[in-house]
Amino acid sequence: MIWFDGTIRPDGPIPLDPGDRGLLLGDGVFETVGVFHRKPFALADHLESLAAGAAALGFAVPMAMVEQAVADLVAAMAAPHGALRITVSRGVGQRGLAPPADPKPVVLAGLSPWTPAMAGVPVRLATVAIRRNESSPLSRLKSLAYLDNVLMLAQARDKGADDALVLNTQGRVTGSAMANLFMIKNGTVVTPPVSEGLRPGIMRTVAIRLFDAIERPIDPEDLDGAALFLTNSLRLLSPVMELDGRAMTPLAPDYAAKTLAACGL
Amino acid sequence: MIWFDGTIRPDGPIPLDPGDRGLLLGDGVFETVGVFHRKPFALADHLESLAAGAAALGFAVPMAMVEQAVADLVAAMAAPHGALRITVSRGVGQRGLAPPADPKPVVLAGLSPWTPAMAGVPVRLATVAIRRNESSPLSRLKSLAYLDNVLMLAQARDKGADDALVLNTQGRVTGSAMANLFMIKNGTVVTPPVSEGLRPGIMRTVAIRLFDAIERPIDPEDLDGAALFLTNSLRLLSPVMELDGRAMTPLAPDYAAKTLAACGL
Repeated sequence: MIWFDGTIRPDGPIPLDPGDRGLLLGDGVFETVGVFHRKPFALADHLESLAAGAAALGFAVPMAMVEQAVADLVAAMAAPHGALRITVSRGVGQRGLAPPADPKPVVLAGLSPWTPAMAGVPVRLATVAIRRNESSPLSRLKSLAYLDNVLMLAQARDKGADDALVLNTQGRVTGSAMANLFMIKNGTVVTPPVSEGLRPGIMRTVAIRLFDAIERPIDPEDLDGAALFLTNSLRLLSPVMELDGRAMTPLAPDYAAKTLAACGL
Repeated sequence: MIWFDGTIRPDGPIPLDPGDRGLLLGDGVFETVGVFHRKPFALADHLESLAAGAAALGFAVPMAMVEQAVADLVAAMAAPHGALRITVSRGVGQRGLAPPADPKPVVLAGLSPWTPAMAGVPVRLATVAIRRNESSPLSRLKSLAYLDNVLMLAQARDKGADDALVLNTQGRVTGSAMANLFMIKNGTVVTPPVSEGLRPGIMRTVAIRLFDAIERPIDPEDLDGAALFLTNSLRLLSPVMELDGRAMTPLAPDYAAKTLAACGL
């Protein structure tokens, strides 16, 4: 189900300006929101993240329009749960890289099926060659220029894994291609700080609070002998079974249970 | 003037599938081609570059469709010159990062005004904080995830410059936000190799041949006392007047003249 330009639309194409910078340059931001029991989980935090991402790119999200899109889609839901994606392009620009002085951002939102079976699925990680570029603001936000994550995932799948362990240019751990990463070692829950080159996902914030996690840089060697889990807004908390073919310490089941409960599931 | 889905279209929106991965993830490639005297310059090289970029992402460009788009747009030109942009998205995918097994790429092409006054304009460069991530294949191709270049340009403009000097994660010179870079020092013309994290632009290849340039890594200190120029397909060869506020050695005028001649201008 798609919302575009003020209204829910039937299946089929949307009328997009061919000068849209989201399409031509990846110039825009997005958020992925779990809708559980017809309620977008942590919506205010997601909208704040969307606004912060656009501000880092130098434009303002038309927030009333985004809120309308979310309200319209949720009101029209048939199933109890869904996966909501909110996309905001900077809109039309002249030829070239320089953005327009007075952008007219474009909002596209879509609702896809989601079921609790998508949460907590255990994953195998493989370390990939593509690094996260922590010198770029894009490492810390969900931009429409998301192709590096597609390639990281492909590199991981080529190695027989489900997702990528991604290092930054200094060789330290940032997370996966599609999630934040946590390590449990000697009874302490640790996740890398945002400055390492990672987006502070909404479920990362939930997990930091639930599990009293501390933020500290993580070297790949630190992961030896640890239990690991990933967080994101649709998979919630996923235990890591394997890293580069080696079995990881199993994760106690209460991590997943507490996360589901925090999401009202 | 826009070409989409088989035909030149009037001004106004194009019907794009809301699941298009070009729009949602920056998953696609593009080329910018100068059309001089109604002839796309070095078109075969541009199409080869487009195909190589898509191959690096794991899909094939529908080349007959691209060739038709170019032919239709050029046939409909009123002015003698133009700037042609060819955009190829991987097409529609399911929710999430993983690409479809059997992609149906989408071609969008547009022709904008171009005049010889756009060629050879001198530029001031400023070194920016965002680095080029040479660990990613995206550093070596023109993908729709082009937003880092937008941000690099904005950082340079904030410093009062026209374009960015971009270093890789090792601190070596790669080029600008929108062009390849050449250095002339002690009578030798030098440009960094592709492995440093840069796209081998078509005008870079022309300039290497015209000026017997050699490929060698360049440290920022190497630029002291050098003459510099940039190459790209629409600005052709641009002398660099200033770097970080310091005047550069002036470029002999025959560099620009030879480049114009090579382009039939």
